[in-house]
Amino acid sequence: MSEKKNILIAQSGGPSAAINASVAGAVTRAMASDQVDRVFGAVHGMEGFLHRQIIDIGDQIRSQDDIEQLIHTPAQALGSSRYKLPKGQEGDAVFARILSILKEYNIGYFFFNGGNDSMDTVSRLAAYLYARNEDVMAVGIPKTIDNDLMDTDHTPGFGSAARYIAMSISELYMDTIVYDKPNVVIAEIMGRNAGWLTAASVLARRAGVTAPHLIYLPEKVFDPDAFIARVKDLVENGSEQQVVVAVSEGIRLADGSYIAESGEATDVFGHVMLGGVARTLESLVKNKLGVKTRAIEFSTLQRAAAHVASQTDLDEAFQCGVRAVEAALHGITDVMIAMHRVSNVPYLVQYDATPLSNVANMERTIPLEWITEDGTDVTPEMVEYLTPLIRGEANVRMVGGLPTYFRFDWTKTIDPLV
Amino acid sequence: MSEKKNILIAQSGGPSAAINASVAGAVTRAMASDQVDRVFGAVHGMEGFLHRQIIDIGDQIRSQDDIEQLIHTPAQALGSSRYKLPKGQEGDAVFARILSILKEYNIGYFFFNGGNDSMDTVSRLAAYLYARNEDVMAVGIPKTIDNDLMDTDHTPGFGSAARYIAMSISELYMDTIVYDKPNVVIAEIMGRNAGWLTAASVLARRAGVTAPHLIYLPEKVFDPDAFIARVKDLVENGSEQQVVVAVSEGIRLADGSYIAESGEATDVFGHVMLGGVARTLESLVKNKLGVKTRAIEFSTLQRAAAHVASQTDLDEAFQCGVRAVEAALHGITDVMIAMHRVSNVPYLVQYDATPLSNVANMERTIPLEWITEDGTDVTPEMVEYLTPLIRGEANVRMVGGLPTYFRFDWTKTIDPLV
Repeated sequence: MSEKKNILIAQSGGPSAAINASVAGAVTRAMASDQVDRVFGAVHGMEGFLHRQIIDIGDQIRSQDDIEQLIHTPAQALGSSRYKLPKGQEGDAVFARILSILKEYNIGYFFFNGGNDSMDTVSRLAAYLYARNEDVMAVGIPKTIDNDLMDTDHTPGFGSAARYIAMSISELYMDTIVYDKPNVVIAEIMGRNAGWLTAASVLARRAGVTAPHLIYLPEKVFDPDAFIARVKDLVENGSEQQVVVAVSEGIRLADGSYIAESGEATDVFGHVMLGGVARTLESLVKNKLGVKTRAIEFSTLQRAAAHVASQTDLDEAFQCGVRAVEAALHGITDVMIAMHRVSNVPYLVQYDATPLSNVANMERTIPLEWITEDGTDVTPEMVEYLTPLIRGEANVRMVGGLPTYFRFDWTKTIDPLV
Repeated sequence: MSEKKNILIAQSGGPSAAINASVAGAVTRAMASDQVDRVFGAVHGMEGFLHRQIIDIGDQIRSQDDIEQLIHTPAQALGSSRYKLPKGQEGDAVFARILSILKEYNIGYFFFNGGNDSMDTVSRLAAYLYARNEDVMAVGIPKTIDNDLMDTDHTPGFGSAARYIAMSISELYMDTIVYDKPNVVIAEIMGRNAGWLTAASVLARRAGVTAPHLIYLPEKVFDPDAFIARVKDLVENGSEQQVVVAVSEGIRLADGSYIAESGEATDVFGHVMLGGVARTLESLVKNKLGVKTRAIEFSTLQRAAAHVASQTDLDEAFQCGVRAVEAALHGITDVMIAMHRVSNVPYLVQYDATPLSNVANMERTIPLEWITEDGTDVTPEMVEYLTPLIRGEANVRMVGGLPTYFRFDWTKTIDPLV
């Protein structure tokens, strides 16, 4: 038996347009390594792993073409789950089961590709393995459109969603100004506590596009009266009669209650599930101002729109996968790959590995000094920060006008090796 | 005074991603003609024309680059209106005013770029001018994402919206299948009485994408019980637990009432304004089946998404503009440019001019034989019809990850010439 070990990668949390580029990077780097024997993937994250839903990625990827297609395929090509590791004794039982499966498949390198909650999972697993002196490296690969992970300049997936949002706000603006009539469009954008995605709407503003005219972020208290007064002023005295508002799903009133809170359920992590901010504000504007108003939710399209992925984002997601494998091969565990911005012009990031304890279960929100005093716009610092992240058009291969996707065969699971 | 005349083009109705390609085509052809002196545009359609909001397009377009950008700019670059010509005596007064303005600006060729209602306007104007022996040719240039104009194989704007819809359904599908859980996504698509756009969702189905699983069109009565039964069966017995439903905003119950009818207002043409079909069906599925369900409205993005325009569509829209000018220069009036499909493989259309009386105020809906018996899908004939229309990627010029748009200066109106 050689000393070679197998690697396994799993994906978790919500979809993004760039998450598969990280798998592509990890697989590419792993397949080029002497230390790695086989490259496995768990289907449906930790939940699937616990049920031995393990496939041979190395076997299913047959060409560089497959890698290219995988990079441009939206949402988790390995499936996902929102499974959360239990705490205490119950958790220990799960860890024991994980360890046993890692051994069954001779896995020496474990990669978990996800957001806050996923980083908690991999951190706890890494600690468990390290405490038992098990020779398995566990490394996190960042992914979240929300851009709310600590200790990294930004996160893979964010740039592509940001590009979709800026593009869509531009198009809505062009659509809104054609009639010589007052018109308010309210676009609802994802981001529960962190307004990064909503802030990215500002990139739409450029030659020929004045939208968004107002930007509301969850980091600042939302004042409905001030909102109505601003919309009224813009409709009546603005350079146009049309107003495009970008609003985060997570905006709250002074008493801390969500605008969209109306008996919604909570998700599996106990987060309040939001929705309907734009519709709530639409009613408000219609009632108070009597102006034609349209609520638009970008909904899941903002995280799935791989056809407008940012090439910068895809390149960085790929690199995060590569670096994760390199860290693990160097015997580093309990870390997440992070990006640090060296310069804006020219744009340059450096990659390193940050301890998962710096990341797990924390949220990075927008610094308040990047939001204007009145809470309806962002500052030039924010624009400078965002600008490089949406650059570059992904070179998506189209057939008959539509993109081609790479699909792993999730049913081709493999038996334990030992 | 030479015998040269000026041309004027106006745009009307709802935005589309291809409507400016028709202006680009008309302008390009007109500027190359000996018979044409100046090229004017009316801002905000007939309403703006009546207020002499006339700009010099020929003066504002300064390069081939401007033409290229205009082609890729979404929504009416000249603005739009939903103004409807009054009937009877009041209408005659308006016609007299139109004629007077046409003379003030020495306009010999009048082009109106729009849908059903616009074709009615230009038809009535053409008849008025012809009856008075006025030497002004009035020609319609088709435009509607709804694809519901008579006597043309399809309409400019449709192919681009169809491509957006197929692309988005693909992306929603990929987003929906990542969790190992039942999940229903209901996408609401425009089309009041004609289901062409909703039918176009079928193009998403291809290698790796099984969505849409159900397609509901306004041409068939919608049966909520049968719908729930089909969703239940797909969730429980389908190859996946996830179901993507494409539904037209205009679906109706057996008694003729709209699903979304809940006290909505009517638009200026007396049409019932729809909205909320997907949300209504979302509640239905949640209540009846207790399955996670998400309603998504493509809303105005489906008509404004120029970044995914179909090149076929843009080329055809451009040609319709060119042919409209050629028809008018040949002394043809009271016609709309129409496309006739010569063959599917290779795809070829021919252009001709059809009398506006064949088009105005009529709607072309989907032939019932192109819809499956159970009303949940379309037939291979529909797929064959749709396939060529979304082909070709528009070569949109991106700067910093976002498209550049061409904007006419609407404030630079010109005084009457005589």
